[in-house]
Parts: sequence; C-alpha cells; structure tokens
Amino acid sequence: MVLLSGGLDSATCLYRARADGHEVHALSLRYGQRHGAEMAAARTLAAALPVARHLELTLDLGSMGGSALTDPTIAVPKGGLTETIPVTYVPARNTILLALALGWAESLGAHDLYIGVNALDYSGYPDCRPAFIAAFEQLANLATRDGVSGRPFRIHAPLLHLSKRAIIQEGLRLGVDYGLTRSCYDPDPAGRGCRLCDACRLRLTAFAQLGLDDPAPYVPDPGR
Amino acid sequence: MVLLSGGLDSATCLYRARADGHEVHALSLRYGQRHGAEMAAARTLAAALPVARHLELTLDLGSMGGSALTDPTIAVPKGGLTETIPVTYVPARNTILLALALGWAESLGAHDLYIGVNALDYSGYPDCRPAFIAAFEQLANLATRDGVSGRPFRIHAPLLHLSKRAIIQEGLRLGVDYGLTRSCYDPDPAGRGCRLCDACRLRLTAFAQLGLDDPAPYVPDPGR
Repeated sequence: MVLLSGGLDSATCLYRARADGHEVHALSLRYGQRHGAEMAAARTLAAALPVARHLELTLDLGSMGGSALTDPTIAVPKGGLTETIPVTYVPARNTILLALALGWAESLGAHDLYIGVNALDYSGYPDCRPAFIAAFEQLANLATRDGVSGRPFRIHAPLLHLSKRAIIQEGLRLGVDYGLTRSCYDPDPAGRGCRLCDACRLRLTAFAQLGLDDPAPYVPDPGR
Repeated sequence: MVLLSGGLDSATCLYRARADGHEVHALSLRYGQRHGAEMAAARTLAAALPVARHLELTLDLGSMGGSALTDPTIAVPKGGLTETIPVTYVPARNTILLALALGWAESLGAHDLYIGVNALDYSGYPDCRPAFIAAFEQLANLATRDGVSGRPFRIHAPLLHLSKRAIIQEGLRLGVDYGLTRSCYDPDPAGRGCRLCDACRLRLTAFAQLGLDDPAPYVPDPGR
C-alpha cells in the first residue's frame, strides 16, 4: 500500500515497494490542494508501474482551512527554505493519509504501508520525522483487528534518511520516469513548476547537483 | 472539538465538552455508512446545543470495502453480542476520525478533542480501548506544529470506563435529549432502530435497566 501524491518522493516509494517484491496498491487523496497537477501525475504513475489498483479518495480539507496548500487566500512562500514550519504545512496531513491507508490496507489484507516522507531535505513538517513514523506504526497495531491479532502492520518510510539527491539516484536505478512526477506547491495552469517554492527548489537543486536536467516541466527560468 | 456521529455516546460527549467549559465545535464524517439517520441526528444535536460550528465531511470509505457498515453486501449481525470483533468493525475508523479532528482542531487553535468511545458496553472494536486513545494522543503531539511546540493536544474519552447505563445517567444530568440520537447499524427507511443489532441491544438494555423508555424511534417490538 503506497501513498502516492504524484511527487518525486512518493513516485520513488512506489517503485521501491515493487522492488521489495510486493503487489502494489496505491492510494491518492484529493484533499482540496491547489496542485491538482499532482493528482494527474499520480494517475499516470500508477498506470505506468502498473499497480494492482489505484484508489483516489476525495476529502475537502480546504473547509478546515489552515494551510497555503488548501486555502487559496494564503500565498505559497517563494523566498526559499526557512528554519520554521512554513504555511504550506497542512495540519495532520500525514496522520490523515496514513489513517486512510491503514483502513484500506486492513480491508485488503495488506500489511506493508509505504510513505515517501523524508527528514533531511524537507520543509520542516513535524509529520515527516522518524518519531512520527514510529508512533504511527505503534498506533496502527493497537487500532486494528489485524494489529491486535498478530498480523502487524509495518510503516515503511524508505526515504526517511536520504538526501533528495540520493532519492533521485535510487529512483533512477529503480526505473522511475521523473518526467511523470509533479512536486510544485503552486504550478501554473498548465501544471508547470514555479521554480521558487520549497518543493521546486529542493528538487531542482538536487538534479543540478547530480549534473542532470529535471525532466518535469517548469516555467521558463528568468535567470537564463 | 467533538466527534459527533449522532449516536448516544457522541451526543453525551457533546454535552460533556460544553459542561467542561469549552466553546464546542463538532465534526461529523459521512463515510458511506448505511445509517444516514445518524448524520441527520448529528445535525439536529449540533443545532440543539448549539455548537460554534458543525463541520460535515464526506469520505467514501465504502470504496475500500471491508465492513458491514459501509458495504451493503455484508449483512449486519442481529443475533446478539459475541466475543469476537464483528463485521460491523470499520477498519481504522476511529484513527481516521481522530486524524481529521486533529487537523481541524489545529487549524482552529483548539487542543481538546472529545471522542465517545467506550470500552465496557461496546462491540469489541480494537479502536475503542484505552491503549488506543493513549497512543493517539502521543501521536498527535508528534504529528503537529502545535504538538511539537508546547501546545499539546489532549484526547478526551470521558465515556471510556462507563457502562452504557452510567453514560445515559450522565447524559440525562447534562440535559441530552436522547430522543434526538440514533444508534442503529441498520435502521429502516424512516430511520427507526431495528432493535436487534449490537447498537440497539446495548442501548435498549441500558434504558430498561434504568426503568426508562428509550425515547428514540424503533420498529414495533414483535415480543410485545
């Protein structure tokens, strides 16, 4: 069971789960995020692997407010990464995503959940840290029929300690076509990355460090 | 922040939260459950208190399958409570509900979450036990911006150790109109309780033990 947003990290997780020998199911959540381009990318990636089933759920987190990713009245920061948790933080997002993945996994009889969180080159979100992943795994095995009856769930976060550069190297080795992925928090209407949000900066920098061109589409670079 | 299903337990929680001195927000999830009568009851109860805001979210858990409460091809058991976890168990339901409540609470600046789980007169669901509640509270404070910055969340489960009878006594003291609540897993088209599912049996028995009539509507009792 792979949580698939359509971004670089979750795409790498998708291929990692297959390489680990699993029949792969992918879950995507349309949660009112601005970046609908990610959902289209998730669908393309799921079909490319292909997965056994790709379930798209819709949930209006925008009605809760509180994040630049769900509330169009809050601007996405473009000034570069900072030391504090940015307004692109979606309250409890990864808790909600893992809870949904857990529910579907138990219904299917799956026990391995993959999430592409990363605690190194990331935006400082609290729900991307190792302690969060460990706590969710513990919760999952108290919360469920399978968990309490000796068929425990494992939360796999294979990118947790990798740099963005190392993630890309791993994904290329596994056959990920990063041209199919979308990461931007604020893409243009054609789905092209803005180059300036945290997500764009992190991946563009990593590809550049590797001496590679990021194959995803971006708006023209004004600096060139 | 009160998770409000419209049943007897969550209605009691709603009034408990107000009695604890809080401005009350209520969250209800329409998750494809058969018992839409519960959602109508939740709306009536929220208006009766009244709450500051009642947010209804929709999520198609039915597409995941795995429960008699979301899958119309699985029959709701009517034979009485058993020792095993019944098919009315919805995989990871309370984890999903608490995750959503946590997200909205953090957006609002609320830190007290109420859930009407009960580990005494219940259907044997794993996510109704004290260990689950404690693990979720721990998770919540690792998963969120507020949790990691010294504004911790508390998960209140004030009914956890009460018998159904004691819950009703507490609710009557707090002013709950149980005629507005609906608990049945398989109500008739008019929203009347079936008398035979676990939820109906538990509440009918408790009202009878108290020498009271359950004011919620039920189909006629064939035994009378």
